[in-house]
Amino acid sequence: MAKDDAANGAGWVSDPADHLRVGEGFDLAEFDRAATPGWEAGKTAGKAFLKERGDLLSEMQERLFAQARSGSEKSVLLVVQGLDTAGKGGIIRHVAGMMDPQGLAIRNFGVPTEEERSHHYLWRIRNALPAPGLIGIFDRSHYEDVLVVRVDELADVDWDERFAEILEFEKEVMAAGTTIVKVAMMVSHEEQGLRLMERLDRPDKHWKYSTNDLVTRSKWDAYQAVYADMLAKTSTDAAPWHVIPADRKWYARLAVTELLTQALAAMELTWPRVRWQVETQKRKLAATMTPETLAEAEANAAEKVPEVREEIAEHRDAVTEVIELAEGDDAEPGKSGTGPSEKKDADRTKPKKKSGKKSGKGKKAGNKKSGKKKG
Amino acid sequence: MAKDDAANGAGWVSDPADHLRVGEGFDLAEFDRAATPGWEAGKTAGKAFLKERGDLLSEMQERLFAQARSGSEKSVLLVVQGLDTAGKGGIIRHVAGMMDPQGLAIRNFGVPTEEERSHHYLWRIRNALPAPGLIGIFDRSHYEDVLVVRVDELADVDWDERFAEILEFEKEVMAAGTTIVKVAMMVSHEEQGLRLMERLDRPDKHWKYSTNDLVTRSKWDAYQAVYADMLAKTSTDAAPWHVIPADRKWYARLAVTELLTQALAAMELTWPRVRWQVETQKRKLAATMTPETLAEAEANAAEKVPEVREEIAEHRDAVTEVIELAEGDDAEPGKSGTGPSEKKDADRTKPKKKSGKKSGKGKKAGNKKSGKKKG
Repeated sequence: MAKDDAANGAGWVSDPADHLRVGEGFDLAEFDRAATPGWEAGKTAGKAFLKERGDLLSEMQERLFAQARSGSEKSVLLVVQGLDTAGKGGIIRHVAGMMDPQGLAIRNFGVPTEEERSHHYLWRIRNALPAPGLIGIFDRSHYEDVLVVRVDELADVDWDERFAEILEFEKEVMAAGTTIVKVAMMVSHEEQGLRLMERLDRPDKHWKYSTNDLVTRSKWDAYQAVYADMLAKTSTDAAPWHVIPADRKWYARLAVTELLTQALAAMELTWPRVRWQVETQKRKLAATMTPETLAEAEANAAEKVPEVREEIAEHRDAVTEVIELAEGDDAEPGKSGTGPSEKKDADRTKPKKKSGKKSGKGKKAGNKKSGKKKG
Repeated sequence: MAKDDAANGAGWVSDPADHLRVGEGFDLAEFDRAATPGWEAGKTAGKAFLKERGDLLSEMQERLFAQARSGSEKSVLLVVQGLDTAGKGGIIRHVAGMMDPQGLAIRNFGVPTEEERSHHYLWRIRNALPAPGLIGIFDRSHYEDVLVVRVDELADVDWDERFAEILEFEKEVMAAGTTIVKVAMMVSHEEQGLRLMERLDRPDKHWKYSTNDLVTRSKWDAYQAVYADMLAKTSTDAAPWHVIPADRKWYARLAVTELLTQALAAMELTWPRVRWQVETQKRKLAATMTPETLAEAEANAAEKVPEVREEIAEHRDAVTEVIELAEGDDAEPGKSGTGPSEKKDADRTKPKKKSGKKSGKGKKAGNKKSGKKKG
């Protein structure tokens, strides 16, 4: 039922990546953290659509994994940044949780250990990069070294040089076959207060609270400033930042899922070709089976193989649809997800485009109300 | 709806661990790989019950994770062994997939790399043990070193000495706080044939097939022999082997889930106590919030906190029920899951027992028909 709702038209009105990508003129202070850019169908439809996307993601994940078995070097890395309570854990649980855990490489970067501190700050990051075929997820990342390290003055470095070093590093990672998706989860100051209070009120959430959370919260303005600088200086065409309004958890999960779906769709993953002869192997295998089991196998194949071919075709169509939304024209400047929805039909009638490189189309994110401290 | 079906009576008729645990007199050659010991309600109810268990597992997993934040050293390790097509990947996808991927540490042990070969065979295993708070899953394990290594004569060692070494290693691991659950997935020769043929028939499964699979299949009897010896020699009271009939995937998943659920239930995990004063923190946090947000937080708490307390009580009951089934008397000798179901009611009226150490109650698994090669 929920699935039907989603199938019956609910979907992205415009490409969320266009709204969320950090380009020139992006203003974090004006960024509305409760908005739902590109999505107008509300929470229930959003959750149903998320489930659909989860199925698609899973299928693409398996193809990515399968291709690595045939020698592909491709992998994906989702970098998740955000202050406490921004919902990083929820993203991993609810987005990554839709996929096969065998195909994931989740790494959490907390306060560096003594060993980590004895190395360059990128050392632990390099060691944690996803192997071919995997979807890596970084819960915090190398960007901590230009955020908490900067706010707490833990290092005396030229920040612009460090930004350049990080971009150089990411270039290397991409050259080695990894697609990078960077998301910065942004809650408002008031929503952070609500979420911290919930952790204090609920005995099952106490363990998530640290007395240090209030210290970090007291540095809100400083964090907003270093986030703004980082976003401006490290959002590139090849590895742009996406700022995710995180006050509505369902939207944040939906948006990150779409960005990940787009990254995988753009790889146009097919099932790998194998080097052995199917018929030869079937003949050899058949010789080890009883006539009864062999007859059962033939009956299974007669029923299942046409279904599989249909599923593969449906998958191709679904991927094409994702690519089309991602490659469509940018949303009109200043138009956010809360705008009218004519664009939807326009997108649908657009002819299919071939996948390819995206041009850098940084666009100011939908700005509605300030996420700045009020209290 | 599915949930109601399961709640309305479907459940384990008797403790699957009792049926599946390898004890004295266990005979792998006679082990029925299509049986469903302890489960009589069929596949649909099995799937619904699996989902319920998944929710319970998730909750226990989060408590385990939370406790590690408070200094607990506890972790769990699920060791999954089995020949090709036995469904190891499916177990990980469908059992581990019900939990939070952030709390999992999944490791796959294939052919050792050059570096791994240069070390003791337990070196790569030690490096992969789950950190405190995590549920580790080994897809193959140190047991490969007494299985494929033995069949292919890759090492010239005294196997009984190696078994002793492995048991010593597992003792160490358990002493460090890790609960070990060992499962050996067993398909019949004919079912393996069917599954290999499916991989050859379906283009989306080709990548899972290797021409080496037929070579391994040709060594069926040798593998059965080394498995039988390994099971007999390395099933201990503290870390017993469970042989999982794997011809019915839904049953195998249900059984492994129950074993994992029992392991976590026996730890009687509660939410950790925190060292800070809740009221002090609430007061400090409140000072950073607007009156409106504060009122919202209070309304949220008034609604949510009673629900949470109820959930915690319900969780305690569910855990107690799992422990009671696991600690009940053994199924009668020779009685398998396909027997009559009077035991169910007897179990239900049994007074609640306190959790504690299980005595080693190895029992011959339900034996119906041979899984041995016929062709």
